[in-house]
Amino acid sequence: MNNGRKMIYADNAATTPLDVAVFESMKTFLLDEYANASQPYFFAKKSKKALKYARETIANCINATPEEIYFTSGGSESDNWAIKGSALSDTKKRLTITSAFEHHAILNSCKAIEKLGYPVQYLQPTENGIITAESLQKIVTNQTRLVSVMFANNEIGTIQPIKELCKIAHNHGALFHTDAVQAVGHIPIDVKNLGVDILSASAHKFNAPKGVGFLYIRKGIKICSLIDGGSQELGFRAGTENIAGIIGMAEALKNNCDSLKKNQLHIRQLENILLDSLDKSKISYIKNGGKNTLPGLISLSFENQSGESILHRMDLMGICISTGSACDSTNTRISHVLQAINLPENLAKGTIRISLGKYNTTDDIVAIVNAIKKINPC
Amino acid sequence: MNNGRKMIYADNAATTPLDVAVFESMKTFLLDEYANASQPYFFAKKSKKALKYARETIANCINATPEEIYFTSGGSESDNWAIKGSALSDTKKRLTITSAFEHHAILNSCKAIEKLGYPVQYLQPTENGIITAESLQKIVTNQTRLVSVMFANNEIGTIQPIKELCKIAHNHGALFHTDAVQAVGHIPIDVKNLGVDILSASAHKFNAPKGVGFLYIRKGIKICSLIDGGSQELGFRAGTENIAGIIGMAEALKNNCDSLKKNQLHIRQLENILLDSLDKSKISYIKNGGKNTLPGLISLSFENQSGESILHRMDLMGICISTGSACDSTNTRISHVLQAINLPENLAKGTIRISLGKYNTTDDIVAIVNAIKKINPC
Repeated sequence: MNNGRKMIYADNAATTPLDVAVFESMKTFLLDEYANASQPYFFAKKSKKALKYARETIANCINATPEEIYFTSGGSESDNWAIKGSALSDTKKRLTITSAFEHHAILNSCKAIEKLGYPVQYLQPTENGIITAESLQKIVTNQTRLVSVMFANNEIGTIQPIKELCKIAHNHGALFHTDAVQAVGHIPIDVKNLGVDILSASAHKFNAPKGVGFLYIRKGIKICSLIDGGSQELGFRAGTENIAGIIGMAEALKNNCDSLKKNQLHIRQLENILLDSLDKSKISYIKNGGKNTLPGLISLSFENQSGESILHRMDLMGICISTGSACDSTNTRISHVLQAINLPENLAKGTIRISLGKYNTTDDIVAIVNAIKKINPC
Repeated sequence: MNNGRKMIYADNAATTPLDVAVFESMKTFLLDEYANASQPYFFAKKSKKALKYARETIANCINATPEEIYFTSGGSESDNWAIKGSALSDTKKRLTITSAFEHHAILNSCKAIEKLGYPVQYLQPTENGIITAESLQKIVTNQTRLVSVMFANNEIGTIQPIKELCKIAHNHGALFHTDAVQAVGHIPIDVKNLGVDILSASAHKFNAPKGVGFLYIRKGIKICSLIDGGSQELGFRAGTENIAGIIGMAEALKNNCDSLKKNQLHIRQLENILLDSLDKSKISYIKNGGKNTLPGLISLSFENQSGESILHRMDLMGICISTGSACDSTNTRISHVLQAINLPENLAKGTIRISLGKYNTTDDIVAIVNAIKKINPC
């Protein structure tokens, strides 16, 4: 419900509702335990303990060690830190490789380092939205400082062959970063097994509050700070710690990771019902991003339609979906992601993103399918 | 009360308790109105409206216009953005001038730009903690890109002659930035009257939540972004907006600004009672920072004593104070601020910072004075 209107939220890739239990865990640190965690007195003990607990909890969720977790203000900061911090920390190996369909936090950070004289090369995805090992193999050299490829694309959901890409980067002495903002808390992530050196995450994408995130930096890796100042976060990220946000992030990630299989199964079932129902209704559509996509992240293209118009008609029926990524929603041009996978313009323009979350129900799917049928975009 | 212990909080310069009404205003945006403000659907309307309201409210509090307010994750990010964003935006005028006793968010940002080939000059304060117009006049040239001097020092409270310094900077074609983290919400600030080009603020210093702040950038001033990515904040600061934090910041600043005179009077009275009581008890101390200090920010030095030991003994009596700034509390060396004002070592080592806030009472002051008497640091 929203403003008395029944509301179906199917835009979980843009942001997710906060778990009520997570809110309760934050409340204490907003209202009572407000001490600055850097202070040495008794009153700051609970804040310090909460920070330690949050760092350990998050580390456990991705198989890292606590001292490898650095709290940030969100995914964009984490991505900026990874790209800029890595480039500026090595003036000899100046080359960064990324993909053409990364989130703008990566792409615009790359533009910023290019202006500073650090060149960037862009890998092109396949039509199914995959950055192949071969494409990286072709251009990586021992002059490459960093390879940065997202864990899963935020518009079409395709999960990337991170372990393989990472291995290639390491074979050439390059660091490997992954923007895992869309994946953390939704699919299993094991940084040790994958071998990644740096990983970005954003709390509000996994039922935690906005304005907080983290960067995993493997022990021994040195990158420059993005936010200099006080000695917080082992001296690598300054600023009084947002304890309420951090504890909320830890609790939410723990919740999601504890129920990962259950959530995945539930969301994948909903996804299958949705696609089956569309098939049965004879609505003609193309599902973008190939087969290996994030659970519930469904990019659909309808020929010669307007995605924007579908979004607005769904909105009138109380259903929240997206055209592209949230950052581009005010921009009606074809998204850089759909351009990168070479989706023809007559399909790209008619693309919507439905992104399901753990709180969605079968009833929601019935309503979404009925709405699409009503709009009849074919 | 904290953990069943009676607690007197006199460390408001490190952080402040959240207003309960502010918490209530945040709650809606944490629990119900969780939409990503960048989305075009109906559900995101309240978030968008809240952002607009917050921007207008904050602008009103410092006599800015809404489009001059950019939301950040706090004071450290704002300071980093001001220093680095300004330096990197002009490759010809490469010189930055700041003071030797700025917050580490400024000093360490300056170190970072120095490494990139942008030189920084440091103004020395007087023994009373003032950066004089004369000292700036001596070194500023038309090669100066930015002058950055804090509004009020965070350890000794001295309010700086910002309007005068700003005028000198402008006379030489330089931009003027002030780190007003310690001042915003506590003393009147009028950016138009002062003439400053860029101003940093942090929410948790004025009874708002941690993890949020803002940067005022005067219309027409162009500095590089620190966090690139999506098109939030007019394209100058990426990242999904932390609506709950932002609305909390706006409400808290409004509360404090609406009661500015009342709060100032109350806190100044408490400060006077404290100093008078110490005088009457014949405890020998020096008050640092001269006469024009922030209300309630009291830096006291006791000869041949240990500030750290006083802090711990006060803590055992349930009173929270500080030695230096919160960022340095784990660092027992003499703070860079006390070094900059040339405080002799036998006084510097015995320095404590008591910082009073609007929630402190006369009873708190009596308890603080009694505690100091008991410790008898003279």
